[in-house]
Amino acid sequence: MTESSLRTSLYVIIFGTHTRAGKLFDLCLIATILSSLLVFILESIPEVNAQWHEQLRYFEYGFTFLFTVEYIIRLYCSPRPAAYAKSFYGIIDLLAILPTYLALIFPSVSFMAVVRLIRVMRIFRILKLVRYLQDSNILMRSLLMARRKIFIFFSTVSILITIFGVLIYIIEGPEHGFSSIPKSIYWAIVTITTVGYGDLVPQTPLGQSLASLTMLLGYSILAVPTGILTAELSKEMNIHRQLVKCPNCSQTGHDSDALFCKHCGSQLADPDKRVVPVNPPAS
Amino acid sequence: MTESSLRTSLYVIIFGTHTRAGKLFDLCLIATILSSLLVFILESIPEVNAQWHEQLRYFEYGFTFLFTVEYIIRLYCSPRPAAYAKSFYGIIDLLAILPTYLALIFPSVSFMAVVRLIRVMRIFRILKLVRYLQDSNILMRSLLMARRKIFIFFSTVSILITIFGVLIYIIEGPEHGFSSIPKSIYWAIVTITTVGYGDLVPQTPLGQSLASLTMLLGYSILAVPTGILTAELSKEMNIHRQLVKCPNCSQTGHDSDALFCKHCGSQLADPDKRVVPVNPPAS
Amino acid sequence: MTESSLRTSLYVIIFGTHTRAGKLFDLCLIATILSSLLVFILESIPEVNAQWHEQLRYFEYGFTFLFTVEYIIRLYCSPRPAAYAKSFYGIIDLLAILPTYLALIFPSVSFMAVVRLIRVMRIFRILKLVRYLQDSNILMRSLLMARRKIFIFFSTVSILITIFGVLIYIIEGPEHGFSSIPKSIYWAIVTITTVGYGDLVPQTPLGQSLASLTMLLGYSILAVPTGILTAELSKEMNIHRQLVKCPNCSQTGHDSDALFCKHCGSQLADPDKRVVPVNPPAS
Amino acid sequence: MTESSLRTSLYVIIFGTHTRAGKLFDLCLIATILSSLLVFILESIPEVNAQWHEQLRYFEYGFTFLFTVEYIIRLYCSPRPAAYAKSFYGIIDLLAILPTYLALIFPSVSFMAVVRLIRVMRIFRILKLVRYLQDSNILMRSLLMARRKIFIFFSTVSILITIFGVLIYIIEGPEHGFSSIPKSIYWAIVTITTVGYGDLVPQTPLGQSLASLTMLLGYSILAVPTGILTAELSKEMNIHRQLVKCPNCSQTGHDSDALFCKHCGSQLADPDKRVVPVNPPAS
Repeated sequence: MTESSLRTSLYVIIFGTHTRAGKLFDLCLIATILSSLLVFILESIPEVNAQWHEQLRYFEYGFTFLFTVEYIIRLYCSPRPAAYAKSFYGIIDLLAILPTYLALIFPSVSFMAVVRLIRVMRIFRILKLVRYLQDSNILMRSLLMARRKIFIFFSTVSILITIFGVLIYIIEGPEHGFSSIPKSIYWAIVTITTVGYGDLVPQTPLGQSLASLTMLLGYSILAVPTGILTAELSKEMNIHRQLVKCPNCSQTGHDSDALFCKHCGSQLADPDKRVVPVNPPAS
Repeated sequence: MTESSLRTSLYVIIFGTHTRAGKLFDLCLIATILSSLLVFILESIPEVNAQWHEQLRYFEYGFTFLFTVEYIIRLYCSPRPAAYAKSFYGIIDLLAILPTYLALIFPSVSFMAVVRLIRVMRIFRILKLVRYLQDSNILMRSLLMARRKIFIFFSTVSILITIFGVLIYIIEGPEHGFSSIPKSIYWAIVTITTVGYGDLVPQTPLGQSLASLTMLLGYSILAVPTGILTAELSKEMNIHRQLVKCPNCSQTGHDSDALFCKHCGSQLADPDKRVVPVNPPAS
Repeated sequence: MTESSLRTSLYVIIFGTHTRAGKLFDLCLIATILSSLLVFILESIPEVNAQWHEQLRYFEYGFTFLFTVEYIIRLYCSPRPAAYAKSFYGIIDLLAILPTYLALIFPSVSFMAVVRLIRVMRIFRILKLVRYLQDSNILMRSLLMARRKIFIFFSTVSILITIFGVLIYIIEGPEHGFSSIPKSIYWAIVTITTVGYGDLVPQTPLGQSLASLTMLLGYSILAVPTGILTAELSKEMNIHRQLVKCPNCSQTGHDSDALFCKHCGSQLADPDKRVVPVNPPAS
Repeated sequence: MTESSLRTSLYVIIFGTHTRAGKLFDLCLIATILSSLLVFILESIPEVNAQWHEQLRYFEYGFTFLFTVEYIIRLYCSPRPAAYAKSFYGIIDLLAILPTYLALIFPSVSFMAVVRLIRVMRIFRILKLVRYLQDSNILMRSLLMARRKIFIFFSTVSILITIFGVLIYIIEGPEHGFSSIPKSIYWAIVTITTVGYGDLVPQTPLGQSLASLTMLLGYSILAVPTGILTAELSKEMNIHRQLVKCPNCSQTGHDSDALFCKHCGSQLADPDKRVVPVNPPAS
């Protein structure tokens, strides 16, 4: 095997997702990322860290070594290593390994906290696989089509939250815990989303009336995003069923996961290749 | 440029929303309103106000000056100044600037609280832009079509809340915090909307059984407004797709944000001009 | 006017809802019921009752007198007074006036509490009007058609609530407040409906994991009743549009509140008379 | 009656659900299971157990005796007793009676707690009946068709919960109760599902901002599972209406519970025999 063909086959395995080896590599990567996340979570539990500090540290070094090897291979087999290094996932991959090395050189405790935050972002890579699922496209298209309705909805909700926050601040005031407008807006969000922690509650009859209004409003407007998304999703699913045509009998109406025509039984185009454009040209 | 044409072009910029200058003016106005809201919110935080009181005050004077200039220009360029001054937005515009001047003349602290409430209403102006979006019309039409179903739903919920409030007042009574029926109704609202602050909780087994029933009911009837709105929204979206016709090939089925016919590619009518009547004549 | 015709016109006004006088009477009745409810609620507030006890009592006597007159007229004008007296609303009407008279004869404080409960049921009469709205029929039909799916859903939820209640009782136990299985089931309902009072919270890691599972489950299964109702409601609205035919051009597709045919403009049948059967024969 | 025909008719009654006797047996079994569950729940209430300990124990022995008889008859009339004994329900049936006998031999208190957990699983048998309802099939099919979309949704939610949990742990830290990442993830679940116990609340302004974001996100993404399920359910209900054909006039569009053709009135196939395949072959 020449060096060029080695690089090509490494590229297909590591960056691609359609071959058997590529899928296996992706699954291993996800398992490794989730394991390193588990070690990271375990380290944060005082009792566990006190007893297993050394072992967790060695696991951490092991995962960092694996991710370093992966990063070097990605740089090696990529047709344009510089482009990869500068891409979003390239930077994430580097940030996932850099902090452990930096922590070895500068053993600063406060710095380690920030490191841990970056480590979590590695799990976003899982979404890479999700992109290739047809169902994910339908969900994404629905959200995209509904984006203007959702924006209008969130603008209205923001205005309502501000008004309710200011009103409760005036009615209840600092003596009942509503010490500033930002804190009162926090209360309005806690109430309108029906979370209801109970750390800040209105105590005057007028405040309780306003809170009741906020709750009933929050309870009702929950219907709006659901209605918007459901209507779009139904439309998208219908559009999809009309777009995919059987190559043999030309009939449509196939489900998003159908592999064979339900009218004549001939094989349909590979779902991964039925590219339904995410951004329709005229929008 | 004559005075008359100056007034007309000012009118188009300030009151209109279709020209480039009009849109820019609206965006600047929204930015100014949001900035003045931010200053207002910052003033309410004790720590910030203690340190930056002077600076925040100057910002406040600056915003009031800008809004005053805007109000005078609106009066100047409006074809019927008296009608504008008496309109809803005319009064809001005046109320947005008046309190700061009044506070200068009568420096009363308790009066300032009411002032702040009026200031928040200025952000309603943002909704003016939203009116022109086609998607907003579809949302509004759906809510209008569903208004009788939503009224029936809220009447039923109000009756249920009253009954559950009275029942918990009889079962738990003042010794467990349910000191009056209004307070018990407040508890019923907190529970049926699934907010659940936890400031008032039933403590007897019978009260907890009633609370369980209230929760399960609240959880289930949440389905009703969502179902109503989704069904109306689906219908509206279908109606819209059937109403807009391509001027070239006369085919329908275009999305609400489509600019070109998806069948023949010719330009569709401007979405802003496709006036779908909000109140159909026969309803 | 003969006595017979007086009785008939009184019957049309009091029991009917289609004439102008009948609608006015119903509105007056609703206003009186709501006012008596307001007096009842005000009486329960200690501060208000202390100061206005006498006045509230006189209002109470006034409302009881009005309801007594109404009850006597209903008995008088009803074609079959005995049947009315024994009907559901006849008994409610009697129970609405009886307690005040009984309280005058036997002035017992503890008995008054039960009285108040019965008083609230008078507001159910409001639902009488709601029955005649076409939209209410569509809602009712949707709920009836979905009753078996909703029963399956609630059976499953009940089983889940029992299992989670027993599990948290075993895991957390009486030392963390989960003193019995009924109380643990109450916690499971508070959690699965996303109310979350916070009066009972798991404190062990295992209990918190179980609680997390319960929450995520409760959060997801909320989709089921909404999905069921929305699907039925969409179907019902379509069926309705297909059932109402224009008497002139025989075309269908009219909205539930349409008064004129949208195809030819001729008047449609009165919505109140378009009786869509609530129980289709073959179900 | 020969022994063989006795076994066959016992089999039809006990394992079958279509005969009158079989349905009666199932209803009796459900009543017995629910009664034994009630006894189990009552035993857990300290006050009830203190007073009625003896009586509850005798009830428990009675139910165990009934379930033992049922288990023996099932073994006797089953055509393949070994296969039944090794099946899921066979093992559940054995586990439902075994603990009471074991508790008689080894009277250990701590062991009884585990016993009680197994007892609850007996109510799963109720689901056996549910399987035969056509509506249950439609619900199940919808969930199955939506499984990939639901998996994508839950993966995204899991990633979001982890990120928000880690962020709040870094922002608030152990001094405000967020003592470890698992506990912070528990907080994120409590918040994103809008349960909001209030046992763990952010106290810094930054933490409250993050919590607000978590709530608004949780509030919005609730729309996604509802949208997915509603869209699938609508599709399933339409498919069902198209699959069932009238044997006389061949027309479709019948409701899932229709027994007669709505076009010509002839009897439709028995709903229990209209087997709509749960797993379509091409998926």
